[in-house]
Formats: sequence, C-alpha cells, structure tokens
Amino acid sequence: MDLKGFHSRMQPAIDAELRAVVGSPKLTVFTGLREMLAYQLGWEGDGSGVEAQGKRIRPLLVTLTAEAVGGEWQKALPAAAATELLHNFSLIHDDIEDASLLRRGRPTLWSKWGIALAINAGDAMYALAFEAIHRLEQTIGAEAVFKAGSVLTDTCLQLTGGQHLDISYEDSRDIPLESYWPMVTGKTAALLSACVQLGAICGGADSSTSELLHRFGYSLGLCFQIQDDWLGIWGDEAETGKSKASDLVAGKKSLPILYGLKQGGAFSREWLSRSLGTFDTDHLAELLVEDGAREYTESQAKQYIQEAMSALEQAGLTNDAGQALQELATSLLNRRF
Amino acid sequence: MDLKGFHSRMQPAIDAELRAVVGSPKLTVFTGLREMLAYQLGWEGDGSGVEAQGKRIRPLLVTLTAEAVGGEWQKALPAAAATELLHNFSLIHDDIEDASLLRRGRPTLWSKWGIALAINAGDAMYALAFEAIHRLEQTIGAEAVFKAGSVLTDTCLQLTGGQHLDISYEDSRDIPLESYWPMVTGKTAALLSACVQLGAICGGADSSTSELLHRFGYSLGLCFQIQDDWLGIWGDEAETGKSKASDLVAGKKSLPILYGLKQGGAFSREWLSRSLGTFDTDHLAELLVEDGAREYTESQAKQYIQEAMSALEQAGLTNDAGQALQELATSLLNRRF
Repeated sequence: MDLKGFHSRMQPAIDAELRAVVGSPKLTVFTGLREMLAYQLGWEGDGSGVEAQGKRIRPLLVTLTAEAVGGEWQKALPAAAATELLHNFSLIHDDIEDASLLRRGRPTLWSKWGIALAINAGDAMYALAFEAIHRLEQTIGAEAVFKAGSVLTDTCLQLTGGQHLDISYEDSRDIPLESYWPMVTGKTAALLSACVQLGAICGGADSSTSELLHRFGYSLGLCFQIQDDWLGIWGDEAETGKSKASDLVAGKKSLPILYGLKQGGAFSREWLSRSLGTFDTDHLAELLVEDGAREYTESQAKQYIQEAMSALEQAGLTNDAGQALQELATSLLNRRF
Repeated sequence: MDLKGFHSRMQPAIDAELRAVVGSPKLTVFTGLREMLAYQLGWEGDGSGVEAQGKRIRPLLVTLTAEAVGGEWQKALPAAAATELLHNFSLIHDDIEDASLLRRGRPTLWSKWGIALAINAGDAMYALAFEAIHRLEQTIGAEAVFKAGSVLTDTCLQLTGGQHLDISYEDSRDIPLESYWPMVTGKTAALLSACVQLGAICGGADSSTSELLHRFGYSLGLCFQIQDDWLGIWGDEAETGKSKASDLVAGKKSLPILYGLKQGGAFSREWLSRSLGTFDTDHLAELLVEDGAREYTESQAKQYIQEAMSALEQAGLTNDAGQALQELATSLLNRRF
C-alpha cells in the first residue's frame, strides 16, 4: 500500500476517534461548549466540511509511524487524536493572541463567540488532548499513557515557550537571529516531533529507532517552518493564498528578515528607518536577496531536509508504512521554493 | 500533631515542590514566561509575598488526605503542586474572561502583561500541572501518574464546562435554578473533590475509602460555593472584603438570586424590571429574605455540610492527619453566615 492508500484508510478512523473523544459523556451536559469544539474541528456550523477540518497531517504522522516501526496503527489512534486536539487548542488561542479573524476560510472561534468563551473552549480542547492520551490504556496499556502523556506535556511547555517569544518579539523591530531557533523549535518543531515520538511509543519502537525518529520529526518541523518563512516573502500569491511578501507587510520575525537584519546592509537600513505599512515590499524582498538572505534561508532548509531524510533512512523502516512515511516527508519537505 | 502543626510542616514542602516544577529545565530558555508564572504564584514582582500566594488550601487537602489514609504525605507533594498549578491556571484565564483587574490585591496577569501573553502563560501553568503529576513517578510510580492524570483531566473538563455555563449565563437575566448545579459543580466542587481524590490515590486508599472521600470533597466544594453565594449578598463588607451585596450589583447567577427568580415573587418582579446598577441593593436583599431565598440557601449549605462531614466520618480516618483533615473541613464549612 502507498501513502494514498494509507491516507484513505487512516483518515476516517482518525476522524472517528476524534469524534469519540469530543463526544465524551463527561461533556454531555455542556452542549454549548461541545458545539464550539465541533465548529473548530470543522464538523458543524457554517462552512463545515473537509476544507474546514484542515489536512490532519499530524495524526497521520502518528499512525504511519506506529505502523512503520512494526506496531498496529489502529492502536495509536488515541495518540493521533491527541495531536490534532492539541494542534487545534493552540490554533484557538493563537487566533485570539494574533487577533486573526479567519481560520481555514471561516470566522475564528473568538470572532464568532467572543474572547471569553473562546479562551475557555481552547482550554477544553487542551483537556481533551489528555483525555485522548488516556484512551491509550484501552489499546496499549497504562505504561503507554505514562510515556505519551510525558511527551504531550513536554510539547505543551515548548509550544507555550515558543509562543511567548513570538508574542514578545512583536513590538520589537530588531531581534537577534539566534532568537529565531528557540521560538520556532517551540512553535512548530515540537509538535511535529511529538507526533513521530508518539507513533514510536505506540508502535513499540526500540530506543535507537525512537531517537532517530525524534531527530527526524524535529528536523522536519524546522524545515517546514523555514519553508513557510521563505514562502512568506518570495512565495507565489496564487500558491500560498496570502498576499505577496505578506511577512514583510506584517513585520513578522521570520528567518530571512532576521538574517537580513543581522547583515546590517541595505535591507537592515531600510527596514529600521521606516514604519510598517510604508514599505515598498517588492524592493525590500529584492534587498533581502542582495544581502544573501534567500541563499541563507534555502541553505538552512536544505540542511534540515538532509538531516530529516538521513535520520529517517538510518531508522531503516522499509515496510509499506515506512515507505509511505518517507513519501509523506518528501512531499512536506519539497514544497517548491 | 494538630492541623496547625501539619500546616507548618507541609506548606514549606509544598512551596518547594511548586518551585521545583516551575523551575523545570524545560523552561530555562523562556525566562520571560517563567517571570510571569512566578508573579502569578506570588513569588516575584511588586507585592509578592505570603498574601500574594493565596492560602494554598488545595495542596494542603492533598497532602493531609494522603497521610490520613495511611500514606506518606511527602510522596503526594507532586499531586499537591498540580492542584495549585491547575487552580492558578484557571485564575489566570478567569481573570481575562471576567476582565478582573485585581487578584489577591495585585494587578492581574493580563492587566500587567496584556491578554495575549497572559492567555499563553495560563496555558503554560496548565501544562505544568501535568508536569507535576508526572513527577509522581519518582515518588510512587507510573501507575499513580496514570490514575492521577486521569483525575486531573476530568477536573479540567469539568472546570471548562462549568466556566462555559457561567460565561454563557452572563448576558441572561433569567436562568433556571437547575442550571446552578452543573455550573458550580464544574467551577468549584470539581477541583476540591479532585484534591481529596488525588490524596487518596497517593496514599493508597482502598476503593471504599476513596469513594467516601470523593463524596466528601464534592459536598465540601458545593457547600463552600453556596456559602460564598450567601456572603455575596448578606455578608459583612469588613469580613468579605467586597462591597455589600456585591453579587446583586454584578448580577451574578448565585444560588439566592436564582432561587428568588424561581419564586416569581417581589424580588423577581423588581429584578426583571430594571437594569443592573439601578437597584437599591439593600431593598433587593430584603426582598430575597422575604421570598425565602436566605432560608433556602442556608438549608442547602447545611445539607452539604452534613453530607461532607458524614462521608468523612464514615471514612474513619482516626489518625492525627485524619483529625487535622476534619479540623480543616470544619473551619472551611463553618464560615459565619
């Protein structure tokens, strides 16, 4: 079976597991709260449907990894659901923190229900991620709950740490390049790495395979973020769905921008002398190229692609699921840029 | 040893455990985030000190219960810390949701750092509660982590469910009396009950003792909330530290108010005909007495006091810690009203 085959078998099961967790009898009396959670997960309300549910890459990484290391992917479903719930918890709160009005083409939870109810719904989604982890007792055993719960907790700490840095940097124009790594490690790499780790735990991987998969997930996450940063400046509007050079417009602390600042060249002088919104972004994007930021960003992305693929190769997962995992990684890592 | 003796032995150890959790190396790179957590816990910043730390009743309930059922209270310290961290997580988010400016006499986290960073700091505090639970592996074992983690997760779901109802009721003037119970069960009883359950788990209580303690914690929590509601209308300003009849001023959905509304008498007519802030609250408080709301509230509180004390008595915890637990319950349940 190839990636497509696994995808079409696993996604309905992942959705069913998510529905079972959110449908917990513990939430029965709180119908209004459950309605908000179902909206966020794309099941209910205006605009619900496949588009609104997102790609669900994270849970797929969990189940594929579990199968690839020799386990049964069905047993990893609770952990897969946990990653999607944790991801959605962080989206709900991020959208409030960033004052974002739209998510997957629909009004964000806070813009529909208000900040107070949305903060609280995010907290409930967070709790449901742990609820999902506890369901591993039924499929694997209490020991798996302990290990997986530990991974989830670490991930939460890294997510909030990274998000703290991101928000803190917002009002600053000049952030050192070194600050980029702890921020994106927490915000992006931690959760993707957790997915692979959870898959390894659920599939019963040995410790050296787990370690290699951990490295794979971490590099995958960093590369994914660096590519996003590249696309945020030089990406094609039609492909990214965002306005051109959107990160320059928003003043985001992305890798090319922080690299450009560090060079202290033409980009840096222009960037620091003006206020946001008054830039000629095409010109700025050009200056970044001249200062070497595009080359640097691409070299960083390539380095992490290599590290990710090399770790995955060393893990030696040669069965169908292992090959599908490689296929998934390749498709994630080779977005055109 | 009496309650005072246990208190003075346990509180420094609880504080040390909390500091160990918040001082986790996992947060080392995120100094700004840790500063916010230390402020919330009353350790740092303007106005830090014992007053700013709160009474820490919840962790004390955990350690006392663990010792009372025959365990060693020191082994329960991670669970004790978890309850205080969870309590503080909910305070951080509640303060944003209620737009409260002051907490324990100091500016709330959001009013000092802004909503975005405060939501995120609450999330980090939440994750630390689970981090604390994981430390039980060192003192008791992985099985305790599993059981205690399950209690913590259930508690979070109930907290967010109760809070959802509370926020939803805010804009409504007429809420049925029946809606009161799921709201306060989630908001207050769940966490107090969790403290006792966690103590029972950590102390290795048998299942019938655990069940009785669960009932005790639940009734204790409900009674505590009902008394708070009584004080919010008829309490002495000097004792409560709040303005007189503050719940009438705020239009809170407290038990006496919902009871009064249900009677459809003089209080209800007056309440539904005017907008908040235009009431003669002394007169309204009088109408509530005439409509039987004070008597009803007192009878409900008494019923839960009896249930709590009877469950605790049946549990038969006769050692020093058991007696101290009874002493603590008595002091909590017999606030003058």
